Amino acid sequence: MSTSRADLPRPGPSTRARVLAVSGDIVRERRDDLATEEPLEIRLSASRHVGSATPRPRTADGSTSTSAGVPGDAHRTVAITMRTPGHDFELAAGFLYGEGVITPGDLSSIAYCTDEDLPREARYNTVTVRLRQGRLPELPALDRHFMTSSACGVCGSAGLEVLRDRCAPLPAGTGVQIAPKVLYGLPDRLRAAQSVFGKTGGLHAAGLFTAAGDLVAVREDVGRHNAVDKLVGWALMTERLPLRDSVLLVSGRSSYEIAQKALSAGIPVVCSVSAPSSLAVELAREFGMTLVGFLRDERFNVYSAPERIATP
Amino acid sequence: MSTSRADLPRPGPSTRARVLAVSGDIVRERRDDLATEEPLEIRLSASRHVGSATPRPRTADGSTSTSAGVPGDAHRTVAITMRTPGHDFELAAGFLYGEGVITPGDLSSIAYCTDEDLPREARYNTVTVRLRQGRLPELPALDRHFMTSSACGVCGSAGLEVLRDRCAPLPAGTGVQIAPKVLYGLPDRLRAAQSVFGKTGGLHAAGLFTAAGDLVAVREDVGRHNAVDKLVGWALMTERLPLRDSVLLVSGRSSYEIAQKALSAGIPVVCSVSAPSSLAVELAREFGMTLVGFLRDERFNVYSAPERIATP
Repeated sequence: MSTSRADLPRPGPSTRARVLAVSGDIVRERRDDLATEEPLEIRLSASRHVGSATPRPRTADGSTSTSAGVPGDAHRTVAITMRTPGHDFELAAGFLYGEGVITPGDLSSIAYCTDEDLPREARYNTVTVRLRQGRLPELPALDRHFMTSSACGVCGSAGLEVLRDRCAPLPAGTGVQIAPKVLYGLPDRLRAAQSVFGKTGGLHAAGLFTAAGDLVAVREDVGRHNAVDKLVGWALMTERLPLRDSVLLVSGRSSYEIAQKALSAGIPVVCSVSAPSSLAVELAREFGMTLVGFLRDERFNVYSAPERIATP
Repeated sequence: MSTSRADLPRPGPSTRARVLAVSGDIVRERRDDLATEEPLEIRLSASRHVGSATPRPRTADGSTSTSAGVPGDAHRTVAITMRTPGHDFELAAGFLYGEGVITPGDLSSIAYCTDEDLPREARYNTVTVRLRQGRLPELPALDRHFMTSSACGVCGSAGLEVLRDRCAPLPAGTGVQIAPKVLYGLPDRLRAAQSVFGKTGGLHAAGLFTAAGDLVAVREDVGRHNAVDKLVGWALMTERLPLRDSVLLVSGRSSYEIAQKALSAGIPVVCSVSAPSSLAVELAREFGMTLVGFLRDERFNVYSAPERIATP
């Protein structure tokens, strides 16, 4: 696959601002760096068989996007997410992969939509993911499909059931084993690698480590789930999926969404410095994922599949 | 308006689990409480004019609704959000209000969808908000409408522009004034009021305070934005909107979404214990909201409208 971008200025991961800093009785004005937050529109595009008998793929959900599409293409907006600019192609690819919309072989190219008649600040907020195949996959509403169980009602267990159709359990007993001593060191390594957090104090991070504790990749974002999408997208675009030997560490907590994205990428060990939710634990137990929480101050809890932790 | 719930068991805000606690070289098994995470489907329902000119009488007693809605009714799923069970009616009302879908006068009743043929765990995961009026409002896709600016592309500034149509700037120079000493005390008061966090260590909170620092209401959730929705829904259902004299404190960071929800509720001062995003600051400056960040250890930063802080 190829990627491209126009050669235009674009928003960075941090933004300058003047603030009033109050400390005790002292008030002073100073410069500050803020974590940039901007929407990203993720579009899916497929080449159309022009002039053939195949029905025109529908431009679902009233997508207003005409300017982005190359003539003869069908495209549709799949999601809009608030994110920190940077690694946007990885974010788009990782999001679509994690939601089960694409597989690695589907990707043809990823590009910004940089029409010159757009306001400058909007130019780098739309990413079009072009597929090899001639038509767009059927897309259930992405905020719903994994949770709906019946005519009336949604529940977490139903979500896990649907997930079973597209995610295999993680292989037990083989592969990665990690020692507590190695785990203890991960949060400091992640923090040290967070370049934007250092400036802004306001970004989540997701880091991928080997079982020996070496940092493989780190991504930052105002959204924890986006940081994981960026990592998964990176792995997809560099043909590293599934991440069978990897350990994921996220800042903050582990929710269902984080665990589900890690599962789809085949990551067997997921750690966070704070608490997991009940549904993250349920998912981890169901699919044999090792879930570690409260990893800080030389302590942690293991919520599932403890056999991957080399306890004394 | 009335609210109702059937008398069935339902998931609580925390869930018991057995975990392996590792500390240094010591490993022991123990019980743990997890923050419950389950999906909530929010439905909007309106009475339909069936074969007559008179509006259908509304369900004022708030009896539990059937899965398909009362015959002759129109209903639609507006959103599915992952949330911590508890204050679900407030969450639904606050979400719809914050997104500009309903006004306080629109509400007729709010009820769970508790069909007996549903699996037990799904029964309390669907809330139907019934409107007084006879038809459902036009709903653009809720994850998109506030960001789309033009034929191609989304951007934060465009989002603010759309917001201008439905939110007035906060009145400057009048109303609430808060002293730094009062602000310093808010995080401890919020934490002390977080009953579920105390058990699980894994929940976000949003607290509403007076300018004198008295806690008015607190709500918890695995999602920060849900905690704010629950507060706003509470204010809506108890006829306290707009919250002109209130100070909001959220755990974690201030994103665009948090600031936007606070703005729609008329809250003039929004504080967080961590960093705001660039777009949260942009919104606050545009609408005259006082945005306070990094409120901890007797320090804070003011990003906008500092006139509401009674600095020495």
